[in-house]
Amino acid sequence: MSALLHQIPGPVDTSHSPFARLHTLPFESVTLASGLLADWQKTNLHASLEHGFRMLEQAGNLHNFRVAAGRETGEYRGRNFLDSDVYKWLEAVAYGLRSEPNAALQAMADQAIELIMAAQQPDGYLNTYYQIAEPHKRWADLDHGHELYCAGHLFQAAVVFHRLLGDDRLLTVATRFADHIASIFGPDRRHGACGHPEVEMSLVELYRVTGEQRYLELARFFIDQRGQGRMRGLGWYGPEYHQDRVPVRQATEIEGHAVRAMYLMAGVSDLYLETGEKALLDALERLWQDMTRHKLHLTGGVGARYEGESFGDPYELPNDQCYCETCAAIGSMMWNWRMLLATGEGRFADVLEQTLYNGFLSGIALDGTHFFYINPLLSRGKYQRAEWYEVACCPPNVMRTIGALGHYLATSTAEGIQLHLYSAAALTVERRAGQSVRLRLETDYPWTGTVRVVVEASDGADWTLALRIPAWSRGATVAINGAAVAAPVSQGYAQVRRAWRAGDVVELDLQMVPRFVEAHPKVEPTRCSLAIQRGPVVYCLEQTDQEAGVDILAVQVDERAPLESQWEPGLLGGVVTVMAAGYALDLTPWEGHLYRSLGDRDTLPRRPVRLKAIPYYAWGNRGPTAMRVWIPRAGSA
Amino acid sequence: MSALLHQIPGPVDTSHSPFARLHTLPFESVTLASGLLADWQKTNLHASLEHGFRMLEQAGNLHNFRVAAGRETGEYRGRNFLDSDVYKWLEAVAYGLRSEPNAALQAMADQAIELIMAAQQPDGYLNTYYQIAEPHKRWADLDHGHELYCAGHLFQAAVVFHRLLGDDRLLTVATRFADHIASIFGPDRRHGACGHPEVEMSLVELYRVTGEQRYLELARFFIDQRGQGRMRGLGWYGPEYHQDRVPVRQATEIEGHAVRAMYLMAGVSDLYLETGEKALLDALERLWQDMTRHKLHLTGGVGARYEGESFGDPYELPNDQCYCETCAAIGSMMWNWRMLLATGEGRFADVLEQTLYNGFLSGIALDGTHFFYINPLLSRGKYQRAEWYEVACCPPNVMRTIGALGHYLATSTAEGIQLHLYSAAALTVERRAGQSVRLRLETDYPWTGTVRVVVEASDGADWTLALRIPAWSRGATVAINGAAVAAPVSQGYAQVRRAWRAGDVVELDLQMVPRFVEAHPKVEPTRCSLAIQRGPVVYCLEQTDQEAGVDILAVQVDERAPLESQWEPGLLGGVVTVMAAGYALDLTPWEGHLYRSLGDRDTLPRRPVRLKAIPYYAWGNRGPTAMRVWIPRAGSA
Repeated sequence: MSALLHQIPGPVDTSHSPFARLHTLPFESVTLASGLLADWQKTNLHASLEHGFRMLEQAGNLHNFRVAAGRETGEYRGRNFLDSDVYKWLEAVAYGLRSEPNAALQAMADQAIELIMAAQQPDGYLNTYYQIAEPHKRWADLDHGHELYCAGHLFQAAVVFHRLLGDDRLLTVATRFADHIASIFGPDRRHGACGHPEVEMSLVELYRVTGEQRYLELARFFIDQRGQGRMRGLGWYGPEYHQDRVPVRQATEIEGHAVRAMYLMAGVSDLYLETGEKALLDALERLWQDMTRHKLHLTGGVGARYEGESFGDPYELPNDQCYCETCAAIGSMMWNWRMLLATGEGRFADVLEQTLYNGFLSGIALDGTHFFYINPLLSRGKYQRAEWYEVACCPPNVMRTIGALGHYLATSTAEGIQLHLYSAAALTVERRAGQSVRLRLETDYPWTGTVRVVVEASDGADWTLALRIPAWSRGATVAINGAAVAAPVSQGYAQVRRAWRAGDVVELDLQMVPRFVEAHPKVEPTRCSLAIQRGPVVYCLEQTDQEAGVDILAVQVDERAPLESQWEPGLLGGVVTVMAAGYALDLTPWEGHLYRSLGDRDTLPRRPVRLKAIPYYAWGNRGPTAMRVWIPRAGSA
Repeated sequence: MSALLHQIPGPVDTSHSPFARLHTLPFESVTLASGLLADWQKTNLHASLEHGFRMLEQAGNLHNFRVAAGRETGEYRGRNFLDSDVYKWLEAVAYGLRSEPNAALQAMADQAIELIMAAQQPDGYLNTYYQIAEPHKRWADLDHGHELYCAGHLFQAAVVFHRLLGDDRLLTVATRFADHIASIFGPDRRHGACGHPEVEMSLVELYRVTGEQRYLELARFFIDQRGQGRMRGLGWYGPEYHQDRVPVRQATEIEGHAVRAMYLMAGVSDLYLETGEKALLDALERLWQDMTRHKLHLTGGVGARYEGESFGDPYELPNDQCYCETCAAIGSMMWNWRMLLATGEGRFADVLEQTLYNGFLSGIALDGTHFFYINPLLSRGKYQRAEWYEVACCPPNVMRTIGALGHYLATSTAEGIQLHLYSAAALTVERRAGQSVRLRLETDYPWTGTVRVVVEASDGADWTLALRIPAWSRGATVAINGAAVAAPVSQGYAQVRRAWRAGDVVELDLQMVPRFVEAHPKVEPTRCSLAIQRGPVVYCLEQTDQEAGVDILAVQVDERAPLESQWEPGLLGGVVTVMAAGYALDLTPWEGHLYRSLGDRDTLPRRPVRLKAIPYYAWGNRGPTAMRVWIPRAGSA
């Protein structure tokens, strides 16, 4: 690996952001070696990406580009934001191609890129929906037209092709389009912002790549344009649907369409990382507090409502009809990652990790070619995965996120290296020019809670290795070269400073044991119920795994009995399952009744059973069956 | 009162329906004298109906008719089904005018009727949306166009104007339109049905009024057309949204848009009442069982989901985000009424009454001029009533239902008279030509459970007085002239047969005491919770009524302490309130947490408080405050 390659930045690059507390590492600094996350990357590379191309062909996304480019005739196909799926898929392909050359994938990407280049209008405009279907309505419907949203995904794909592959074809398209946009929108030009945020963070990335201040200014302009109450909502919603009720700096509630909210927060965070404007960070902190204290599902999923795909009221967290869109989970990861970079505080990594292993990973099937758009915490048996969706924002979004997973593992500062997520991996960090620190991470995380960090090379200087201690961990220990050390924990990280030498071994034990979790008493559908979590992994009962005659929708769990973990290599790609003691309820006394006067009822008959729990992310891979995360407690009525 | 007037049928007339087990009484057979239902009729007459006319003017409904009639120029205003609101309002006015002459209301009605007549096309077609906005798209979008739905409401209004007021202006319009429809749709003509049922039951009513068999056949045709899977759904829904997934006779699940489902069921019931086709009654029974065992809120509300305004899965009954549209409650009342007429079984009257006093009556404010479209069982404080809605199906639907409330009180058969609902009222039934039975009902129901039926005149013959014993009643007693009698209860009715004489007094005591109700263990958001019900009235906690410092969203109720009722004449128009013992929870240990590991938590501190419950229907009349029907039990976690 050459020094040059090490300097290639990843998807979000804060290596030069003046207000980043932590600096992202070059893309190839981290290589996932084995284990759960590495396996997902393999599936992505060998199944998802090619599947994605087939689907983009089948759903009409590429057809639309061909028509716009004059290569085909025909109508525009699908909803007005289909271009964005192609861009997200391309971004995912870039990570894949950087990790492992693949001629077939390269050819597919070339085909798409060439079509994109050919479809761009002479003035720089590019949106196949408006070019084909409503040529006279460019920028006429900012609220629902998705033009800037699609542009944003183009910019992000272009940035990644430039950074990772040195391929500037998309970047040329992107900057031409960005300049066209800048000629139309601005303080002295047309006012307004896109109903669906995305362009904000992408313009900051474009600024990071090109150094062009005007892209940063345009990002700021679009963020400042929000909150005037001008946008038309949807259904029962007003401007809050689009986060347009109040300006970001005054906002106190995370509200409206969850994906839009998360993407806006990511964009605002990016703006803060470059400008350091305190009012932005204060607003981000307020909204993060509102989300994590009142509006976050245990799985990290956000968006309580189908209606408007939106956040609900505080503590409105249904299990069955929550939306928890996969894209919203991704948006939350993007936001939390940027908050972590801005502050260095582990609580953001906690939410990122909780989301990653649960509400995000549930969005893709083990085969890599089926997806969940919505990620409920309770299914009564009908819900199942699809190979694509009419609104297919999620599948390519999953692909690009998995492709860049290594990005989230570690960062660096002048003081040292921070480890945020744990996976078997190789890390190379050039703390000083030409002198690499090389670390090897050995772990079966999240199946075990022990992580060995082997120093393979260091630079001779003192520096701090910061190891994240997740909020769920109780009694975590750190040992260096076999001897326990008292590593002070600050802001969620155990800090170990020394002049590291090749051969040093740090052993972290996070004490991973399964545990019961309960929710705030104001949350209704979790009342008298418990969830099982083990490390960052949330568990669920799936009907398939239970003893004959057990209906998981009529069971209780006994919280006094110990939970038992077991590694099952042959199950669901290899998972740790958890066994719990519980009861199967006999609902015969309720037959024919939905409601009864209290006096009518005797204690419900029940018999002891063993309940088998699997990781939530792995559900829905064996056909449609019932599933539940929250289980009523044995003592409950 | 002349004998002629007594023979004027009410809104649904089964006096000649061959398969009706019970026969509806003429409209003026029942006069509500005083009490809750009578008060609502007064509010309707003196506030709601004129408010409705103002709103129809303001929202553009009448403007649309003026434009269609060539009296004004301009665009069509509002959604494509606005005509139906005018028809429903007219139907409501007809009941009002029959009860009490009112020159101002008559003038408003005349204005609307005259516009409707003028707007009808020469070929009989009438729909202002298609006439103004999309003249070339008549019948082009049966799924979402609402043309037959609007027609149905026209027919129903026309039938009522004809029956109650002898005013045939609308009936002429209606039959011309119906004949036009019959010239287009039919087994040998165009196939299809309206996405929103309504025309089915209205065509049966048109048949009842005119005796024209072809209207009954057309109703059957539209019902038979359903279930081919041809209709385009909405959002995440397919044809089940429109009850088009399976033919009615094969259906096993009540599903899709709740108002549409209820209206279809009412139409199918009407078809059964006239044809006696057993497969229809079997299907109705199956779907009723599915609804009442799995998909009915305690308030009688139906429609668990905002998404598609639809039924959910079995036991999916959220408190906060349920839809429980007022129109769906009305639809359920219409369906249950027809099932009662078809079978004579009290279980249908039970559901009708539960819906009437709760999920229906909550739809209108005490002032008669503000409404709920959606009727949740839990509000965290933001939800409030509006004077009208962009989709204003509910307000005029409430008005027509309240106008015809007397209709639901009693029926007759060859054996006697059946009392279904209880209110202070005067009843006159001509069991034999020229010989009236007159009954006076004295009661403060639903505030008390005692009902006195005073026989003021009888016809000398033996006949059975059947008194409904609601399912909630325990130990109901019947006395005649002061002496207890053992009245056998059959299908929910206590039967007392004798040769009734003037002066006979029957006293029914339903033993109305407040009680706790619990829900099926598979319902999630009611787990470990209880509701309070007293007679048919469901109670709720509204924040306004509680002691200082009590947050109703953080309380528990103690089911071991007695509930105490109190009549409060000055509160909310006069209601019985219920006091319960409970606890206010101290949530300090949860501050800053949404989830916690089980071991983290000590028992939640709490202090004893008194909780005051008001009838659910009366909530939301004192500004936006929190409200809940289901209250966690004191013993719950």
